[in-house]
Amino acid sequence: MIPKISHRHPQGTSSLAALFSLSDRPNSISFSGGYPDPALFPKNELETAFQKRIKLASADLFQYQSVLGNPDLRGKIMYYVKRLGVTAETDQIMLTQGGQEAIKLLASLFLDKHDGLAVEGPTYIGAVEAFNEYQPTYYEIPMQPDGMDLDLLEKQLQQQQIKLIYVIPNFQNPTGYCMSIEKRKRLAKLASAYDALVIEDDPYRELRYQGQSLPPVKAFDQTGNVVMVNSFSKILSPALRCGWLLADPKIIAPLATLRLSFDCQSSNVVLEAIDQYLNDNDFAAHIHQLRKTYRTKLQAMLTGLAENLPKNCTFSQPTGGFFVWVTLPAELDAQKLLKLSKGVTFLPGKDLFVVSHQANHLRLNFTGTTTQQIKQGCQELGQVIQQALQPAIG
Amino acid sequence: MIPKISHRHPQGTSSLAALFSLSDRPNSISFSGGYPDPALFPKNELETAFQKRIKLASADLFQYQSVLGNPDLRGKIMYYVKRLGVTAETDQIMLTQGGQEAIKLLASLFLDKHDGLAVEGPTYIGAVEAFNEYQPTYYEIPMQPDGMDLDLLEKQLQQQQIKLIYVIPNFQNPTGYCMSIEKRKRLAKLASAYDALVIEDDPYRELRYQGQSLPPVKAFDQTGNVVMVNSFSKILSPALRCGWLLADPKIIAPLATLRLSFDCQSSNVVLEAIDQYLNDNDFAAHIHQLRKTYRTKLQAMLTGLAENLPKNCTFSQPTGGFFVWVTLPAELDAQKLLKLSKGVTFLPGKDLFVVSHQANHLRLNFTGTTTQQIKQGCQELGQVIQQALQPAIG
Repeated sequence: MIPKISHRHPQGTSSLAALFSLSDRPNSISFSGGYPDPALFPKNELETAFQKRIKLASADLFQYQSVLGNPDLRGKIMYYVKRLGVTAETDQIMLTQGGQEAIKLLASLFLDKHDGLAVEGPTYIGAVEAFNEYQPTYYEIPMQPDGMDLDLLEKQLQQQQIKLIYVIPNFQNPTGYCMSIEKRKRLAKLASAYDALVIEDDPYRELRYQGQSLPPVKAFDQTGNVVMVNSFSKILSPALRCGWLLADPKIIAPLATLRLSFDCQSSNVVLEAIDQYLNDNDFAAHIHQLRKTYRTKLQAMLTGLAENLPKNCTFSQPTGGFFVWVTLPAELDAQKLLKLSKGVTFLPGKDLFVVSHQANHLRLNFTGTTTQQIKQGCQELGQVIQQALQPAIG
Repeated sequence: MIPKISHRHPQGTSSLAALFSLSDRPNSISFSGGYPDPALFPKNELETAFQKRIKLASADLFQYQSVLGNPDLRGKIMYYVKRLGVTAETDQIMLTQGGQEAIKLLASLFLDKHDGLAVEGPTYIGAVEAFNEYQPTYYEIPMQPDGMDLDLLEKQLQQQQIKLIYVIPNFQNPTGYCMSIEKRKRLAKLASAYDALVIEDDPYRELRYQGQSLPPVKAFDQTGNVVMVNSFSKILSPALRCGWLLADPKIIAPLATLRLSFDCQSSNVVLEAIDQYLNDNDFAAHIHQLRKTYRTKLQAMLTGLAENLPKNCTFSQPTGGFFVWVTLPAELDAQKLLKLSKGVTFLPGKDLFVVSHQANHLRLNFTGTTTQQIKQGCQELGQVIQQALQPAIG
């Protein structure tokens, strides 16, 4: 007999696995994943970047490299965060296999069983699954349109031992909400005052479709109590698996050691090719193109929802990111709705509330489909909600 | 204040981190790491493979892919293991970020605190560091020139609850020893009889410099109690970070779910480029070239050690792999020797014995240096041992 798996891993399919499989449901329009539009991947430029860097570099390109990853690419990230108001050395930056690995490493480094962990309600399912293995005690802090409810967070910080606070300040996954500048300042102060560490996960920062960019929480951090996590997945390509984190040297040192036991380091050839791509191309112009395309898609979705959802449904009005958040009438269950739905898939919100498990919400992605599909998908969604709202005849 | 890191992670620098930094000591000949010879990386062929596959493939090459990794490459691995006597479906194979991640994922999936884990004494330090986070109870089973002492293992299996058995059957790291075919058969039977899972880590399999290749332990597994772990790191390039594991479907299913929370998947562009490289090149001829070069280096090291080590030192006589294992007179401590040594670095064996912490052994790598450096390094090593053996003048 094969031995039993650890009790830390509950049996059955995870929400994340279910999400990935949902996105593959044939003949459905998928609003369920978090996929970028593949037409926006700079395929030719990346081809050139890989070829050129492999040609230019010595064979050591293919040798074991430092655990933190390519220094030139880290230098570019240092310069990027400087413009956001964050002063850091390149050795405070670690390149990771996507933002997901950064979250996993931080979870592994800090969390012991029953350690307090505050997350937004709702929050990103992938982060929850990374945390779950360490069996933390969750504190679900409700989301507001201007970010996490910090009055409630402060109450919890006063009453409980909270070690980590996980937030997505820009165009939050799943709500699309954006944290106000006042809350960013206050969150940095709270973390410092209560000896907690903020994990600031910011993969959608550059994908703002209107208004002004806000400084990261990290820009207000005086004490090293904020770690930035970011990724090239949404703005360049997810399959490159290149993310990064920026942390106080006191955190980077043990994290680098830990990383060696996870996977040693990132795929160096990928890091070097991204560095080459950034050398040779106008990345700002590329991002501008993403914004233009996704702005149109977001508008198509907001219009489609306004035209098709029953009046007793509400939805968020994001100004960036990948997602719109829909709140159904309280009596509806989004998971049941998904089973009814033939033509469109989405992510039910239940598992995104780690404590309250609210059933009447769903997340819609608008980047991975065409505007035509978005239009049709919103009609399908409107119809299936109408259908679910009709009292059973009989 | 920044919160404390988990008590699962002891403070200070890990052995693995120390090992990586040792390899960088300037003006020293490094026998300490496990680096391939960079002159053997097929740089031009890989350049072509990246360019060609990115050109040929659709933009979906850069999109999120399946968690198991590129199906064509998994198909090639399925075909490879078939020739070794292992029948498996491609969906039993997961591509990982090097073999290291495969070990880490298996550790995370199976190990709870105090679970029994049998390892070879000595064993691979990277595996130990991957296991340590889960605080297993170690059983150190002594190595013999024909592999792990299975009489002792069986006694432990009878008396203790042992969940995992970690072995490197071919050209073991660090000893260079090779497990006999009789022991391979018996190990598979023991695992099945005692409901334990063997992790068969086999990165040096193709690097045999004389004699006949032996079937893997997995070839004798009737019950799914053996997981194969392997890697392209030693035979193609470590910086690609491409490893794989092959396991029973009952293990692959929860492992795939777990992987999503670690880093979602490997860097797809790398997997596809490796697949393209294998399509377009004679990999057997490449391996033949590695064997030829490393055979010469191994011979240089064995000759250098025979000529320079004092007669009361012994060393292994590997027929493949990356390492030679030196046993010093019992009164010598290899860590102290390393501090004395100016001209050559090596890996002291103490941390490689997870229970007995024997101090009078050291591991030498012969692949990452030139034959000239090997010759000189063996002279340096002989001198520093002589120096340590001389009674202090007082």
